[in-house]
Amino acid sequence: MRGDDLTPTVLDRVFNARAIAVIGASNDPRKRGFQTIRRLLADGYGGTIHPIHPKAPEILGLPASPSVADVTGDIDLALICTPAATVPGILAECGAKGIPGAVVLAAGFGEIGAAGAEIDATTRQAAAAHGVRLIGPNTNGLFNLHNAMNLVGVDGATPGGIAVCSQSGNMLLSLVSEARRRGGIGFSSYAGVGNQMDVHLAEYLDHFGRDPATRAAVFYVEGFQKGRAFLDTCRHVAQAKPVVICKSGRTAAGQAAAKSHTGALASGFALTQGLLRQAGATVVDSPDDLLPIAHALAHLPLPMGSRVAILADGGGHATVAVDALVEAGVDLATLSGATRARLADLLPAAASCVNPVDVAGGTDADPGLFADCAQAILQDAGVDVLLTVGMFGGYAERFDASLGAAEQAAAQRLAEIAADAGKPLIVHSVYAGLGTAPLAALAAAQVPVFPGMALSVRTVAELVRRGQAVRRLAAAPAATRPLAPDPARAIVAGARAAGRTALYEPEARDLLAAHGLPLSPHVVTRAGEDLDAAMRRLGDGPLVAKVVSPDILHKSDAGGVKLNLSGAAAVRDAIAEIYANANAYDPNAHLHGVMLAPMAAPGVEAILGVVQDPAFGPVMMFGLGGIFVEVLQDVAFRALPLSAEDANEMIAEIGAARILEGVRGAAPVDRAALVELMLTLSRIALAHPEIGEIDLNPVILRADGHDIADARMILRPEGDNT
Amino acid sequence: MRGDDLTPTVLDRVFNARAIAVIGASNDPRKRGFQTIRRLLADGYGGTIHPIHPKAPEILGLPASPSVADVTGDIDLALICTPAATVPGILAECGAKGIPGAVVLAAGFGEIGAAGAEIDATTRQAAAAHGVRLIGPNTNGLFNLHNAMNLVGVDGATPGGIAVCSQSGNMLLSLVSEARRRGGIGFSSYAGVGNQMDVHLAEYLDHFGRDPATRAAVFYVEGFQKGRAFLDTCRHVAQAKPVVICKSGRTAAGQAAAKSHTGALASGFALTQGLLRQAGATVVDSPDDLLPIAHALAHLPLPMGSRVAILADGGGHATVAVDALVEAGVDLATLSGATRARLADLLPAAASCVNPVDVAGGTDADPGLFADCAQAILQDAGVDVLLTVGMFGGYAERFDASLGAAEQAAAQRLAEIAADAGKPLIVHSVYAGLGTAPLAALAAAQVPVFPGMALSVRTVAELVRRGQAVRRLAAAPAATRPLAPDPARAIVAGARAAGRTALYEPEARDLLAAHGLPLSPHVVTRAGEDLDAAMRRLGDGPLVAKVVSPDILHKSDAGGVKLNLSGAAAVRDAIAEIYANANAYDPNAHLHGVMLAPMAAPGVEAILGVVQDPAFGPVMMFGLGGIFVEVLQDVAFRALPLSAEDANEMIAEIGAARILEGVRGAAPVDRAALVELMLTLSRIALAHPEIGEIDLNPVILRADGHDIADARMILRPEGDNT
Repeated sequence: MRGDDLTPTVLDRVFNARAIAVIGASNDPRKRGFQTIRRLLADGYGGTIHPIHPKAPEILGLPASPSVADVTGDIDLALICTPAATVPGILAECGAKGIPGAVVLAAGFGEIGAAGAEIDATTRQAAAAHGVRLIGPNTNGLFNLHNAMNLVGVDGATPGGIAVCSQSGNMLLSLVSEARRRGGIGFSSYAGVGNQMDVHLAEYLDHFGRDPATRAAVFYVEGFQKGRAFLDTCRHVAQAKPVVICKSGRTAAGQAAAKSHTGALASGFALTQGLLRQAGATVVDSPDDLLPIAHALAHLPLPMGSRVAILADGGGHATVAVDALVEAGVDLATLSGATRARLADLLPAAASCVNPVDVAGGTDADPGLFADCAQAILQDAGVDVLLTVGMFGGYAERFDASLGAAEQAAAQRLAEIAADAGKPLIVHSVYAGLGTAPLAALAAAQVPVFPGMALSVRTVAELVRRGQAVRRLAAAPAATRPLAPDPARAIVAGARAAGRTALYEPEARDLLAAHGLPLSPHVVTRAGEDLDAAMRRLGDGPLVAKVVSPDILHKSDAGGVKLNLSGAAAVRDAIAEIYANANAYDPNAHLHGVMLAPMAAPGVEAILGVVQDPAFGPVMMFGLGGIFVEVLQDVAFRALPLSAEDANEMIAEIGAARILEGVRGAAPVDRAALVELMLTLSRIALAHPEIGEIDLNPVILRADGHDIADARMILRPEGDNT
Repeated sequence: MRGDDLTPTVLDRVFNARAIAVIGASNDPRKRGFQTIRRLLADGYGGTIHPIHPKAPEILGLPASPSVADVTGDIDLALICTPAATVPGILAECGAKGIPGAVVLAAGFGEIGAAGAEIDATTRQAAAAHGVRLIGPNTNGLFNLHNAMNLVGVDGATPGGIAVCSQSGNMLLSLVSEARRRGGIGFSSYAGVGNQMDVHLAEYLDHFGRDPATRAAVFYVEGFQKGRAFLDTCRHVAQAKPVVICKSGRTAAGQAAAKSHTGALASGFALTQGLLRQAGATVVDSPDDLLPIAHALAHLPLPMGSRVAILADGGGHATVAVDALVEAGVDLATLSGATRARLADLLPAAASCVNPVDVAGGTDADPGLFADCAQAILQDAGVDVLLTVGMFGGYAERFDASLGAAEQAAAQRLAEIAADAGKPLIVHSVYAGLGTAPLAALAAAQVPVFPGMALSVRTVAELVRRGQAVRRLAAAPAATRPLAPDPARAIVAGARAAGRTALYEPEARDLLAAHGLPLSPHVVTRAGEDLDAAMRRLGDGPLVAKVVSPDILHKSDAGGVKLNLSGAAAVRDAIAEIYANANAYDPNAHLHGVMLAPMAAPGVEAILGVVQDPAFGPVMMFGLGGIFVEVLQDVAFRALPLSAEDANEMIAEIGAARILEGVRGAAPVDRAALVELMLTLSRIALAHPEIGEIDLNPVILRADGHDIADARMILRPEGDNT
């Protein structure tokens, strides 16, 4: 599944098929089995087409065979145009013939519910049993325009560098129409994934990663099924090529709409977005952004940093650009004194020579000056990205046609300057979309040119984000499965042996401590036991007492928690009371004891957890306690293993992050200790695959470290290795 | 300033000028005084052009005069193309001639700082002294295309219904280019407001409200100067015409960029946006949205409610549309059983007949069915707006050219169906922008057709918001200045007489109580005084004691607050301690006494305040206490007077609104009582113009009402009537 493995995959053969069997080939022009062959012939497909038809001797002038078994020579791909019921049998024939992959167009499988369940299962089995990789079913097909192999039949798509993978066939139509509208954007390959019965999203992404014709991969996804595999592949592919994803089914209503469409299981969007970005993907809100952003990212150099400069020939556009960049979280570059002096030399006194640079009319009569300004800015070591905004590209139109030649030359020079600097240049122009020659020259040089300010700024922001992600991914060490120390393994094994589904809190604390985490001491005691040794161990501070029982999940509800206990007498009374309360709450509950521990000193309450996402596997959640998580759902997610950069990004990502910096006179929390805690928790979760869920809630964060005030660990059902 | 006042304003005369003096007319084609006249002649301007030139006998074949004084007949508008220094003298001449308005193009006034201050003041005085209303300076001019009067010289703008007012001339170029690119959008009038030295934004808006050719007004604003007047005018105009505003300078960096551009003072954006929407304006994030949304709103009927239905011919687009609508806060309509049955009759079994309706290919062969489905949905009384998404408009292209005639007829019928239903229809189509005939027919019928899903959904959301705003504005009673009861006026007068700049807290509480607000009792006492009567009055609950002093602003810092006091002895000790602390804190502080009041019962902490915004006048702020306001800046603003709908919108608008509904087992707060408190506070602020700032912080909100736990009122400096 890795792009650096040079063994051709089935998808490599499928997309570059030299021989295609069209099963259900037809002489009826209304049928897909006719249209597809006609299209292959019209497009000059260079391979061999084998129409398969039970009786017809030829289809569209090509000799037909009753079955793939009757075909002489290898076949790389079967396009199955026949109804669902016929598919298992056909797959058996394909397998016998050694055909590695089949596209199944028919609907009527799992996506229609119970009525399709049986044929779904039979088809799945047939594909596996006969060694045929299945694309679809319920797909509009695939294409590789560089192979003149358009099995979808979509019109108007030109060959180029954008690969598309979509869970909705209509999204492909949207993208193709948009490419026609924008101009200059072409496609490499497309896969309509349909029901993802067999070949799934990660495999298409892996193929796009290997495909030399593909410069950027675009995904429209309603739900991830093998999400973990997708993340792993994305982490690899995204380092070389942009992977741009629109995930729909983000809202509960959207999920309902998506379910009726493809039956995909959609995870929470905050989680999905966090994980995809962690894996280097570019996640866009709207499918409208897929194509322009993918095309721009495919051709721009990666920025070395996040500092964006703006060059404007109009104050209004500069102001709007600054607002939008700041709102998108992008850093504005600070120009050096030398750059400012150079700009001041070039421009009139009214110009602004700090970022945003506003030429204030200084280039109206000489568009070449605009390129000079861009050069000065791009040569500044403090600038990573340049966004020009305003009227460049329309000077001849706006001021005087005699400026045309100079403006054209300036545009060409602008593109060269950016290429020489190795820095990305994005051009917003009032005149974009009106076909002016200077802007056409920029577009021909693969400089993104947009008429819209919002899209220009989103492109810049995603470019900066991608630069950060690629640097982060390149620096991440290879993941190795961490080892659990023996005492920690013994704790889990003991709980399993006792038939429990969760660790006791003292066990969870011991397990965390066995992995090296600093925890306050605790003692488990029982009603009536002598407390002298315990009190000595726990120190002078006030204590908390909590019931320990496999049968009491909600300890507070059962009266099983007593806070702020000072002195042995108070502790003894509390223990007795907890026993009494617990017995009253559930007379049958097994009471393992009462845990005593020092109260945590006050600080900022946080929640750290690890859950097993059904699509993406082990995932860490971070948020602040109380209403922040419960009401505002202000949380960040990342897949495990976590890197330090991941942890820092999670901390920065929550809306209430400023609270960690210290508010209302409080000192900032110890962020390094928090990051270390998150990394350790990631290692713990991976070292103990038997643990399904970890909940440190709350962790009290302070300037001098933190206390884990409560720890829960839930075991997976035995044998669950999802 | 009101559109129902039929007296023509100066701007009415200016924009419909029948005679224009061009001061600084020139025979040099590079000069504005040449270009403008050439343009007026070329466009067939029907009025009289009077070139003014000190010596030339004629300009471009027109007889020139040395001064406006030498012109025979009335002049409606002077276009002053000469440098800044000449402007005061020219204004004197214009005034003497009775010219009501002048456009001053020159820069070099207040916007360049100290160097322009003197000429700025002189010009301002000259305009006022000679009765000439001044447009600009530092403007690119104005146009009224319906009067063939294009004083800006912008090319490519066609006459139509969109009026534009901009603080940046380049924004006009953006909008004109965009209109060319989109097609079908024309302009009525434009005003470049420049420095707003005299005529300001509200007056342009008032003019656009009166102008019969204007169907929607578009504003690009960097800072409001007479914001209150703009709100008042907007409240009026927006009931008849959309007022669509992009406010830049939203971020601190953006404000800095804007300041170097025009020197405008930008208020906080949350405040500005809250107030503009309250006044019925449509506020868009990006200038990209100004034109398409204004054009759509100008031609669509206002929806009667907020319930949006989606009709899709593609599951993917339906899912994306639902996500985006829900994220935009729009309500999805629930279709009636009858509508669902009708759709089920029309469509195949695989179709989704609930909202979003997905025809699932059922209209591919018969586009007329798509119109039938739209009709069924639009006739549902539970649907206020219809958004169609997907491929309609490209069936002939996608499937078969033979569908063209049927699709064209379906498009025309679709427009008629929406018109008959009196409900807004917005069309998203994959094929928009590719010039298909059915979509052209829809556009010709003024149905908005967009290729982008995001813009389609933003248009729907703004349409729904505008419908709500117009209903709210129509229902709002006329504002009358509320009366202050005598005891309340006496409190303010007493504090003023004592030379204080703020009320004591007990005075503020008495003032609130005098206006009928329920407050717990309080007593002001001094060290050593007998407490029996006070304790009887204040009841059995724990008390709070606070120092009352004009010299101690931060009571807690001074040790001037004691909480949770039970019993006379504790209270006596606390009072003594407060006196001692206050004396230690500031030996010179005048101590008026110590206020005793019952502690507020626990609840949700909120903050209610009234401030005087420099641009917008009295403004209420609402937010939740603690970090919500201080860290997250999660606040809502509205201008006073407040309506009940305003108050409810403020409460709904804050991010933490869910907390008021009761979280973690708490009961919801008494929202009706909160609204009543906000309305009363609005009346109090307006009844006492001497009070500059009111801060009720915190107000403790509970299920059974609320307690005002602290109240501050700051007086305005005497004589400040801004």
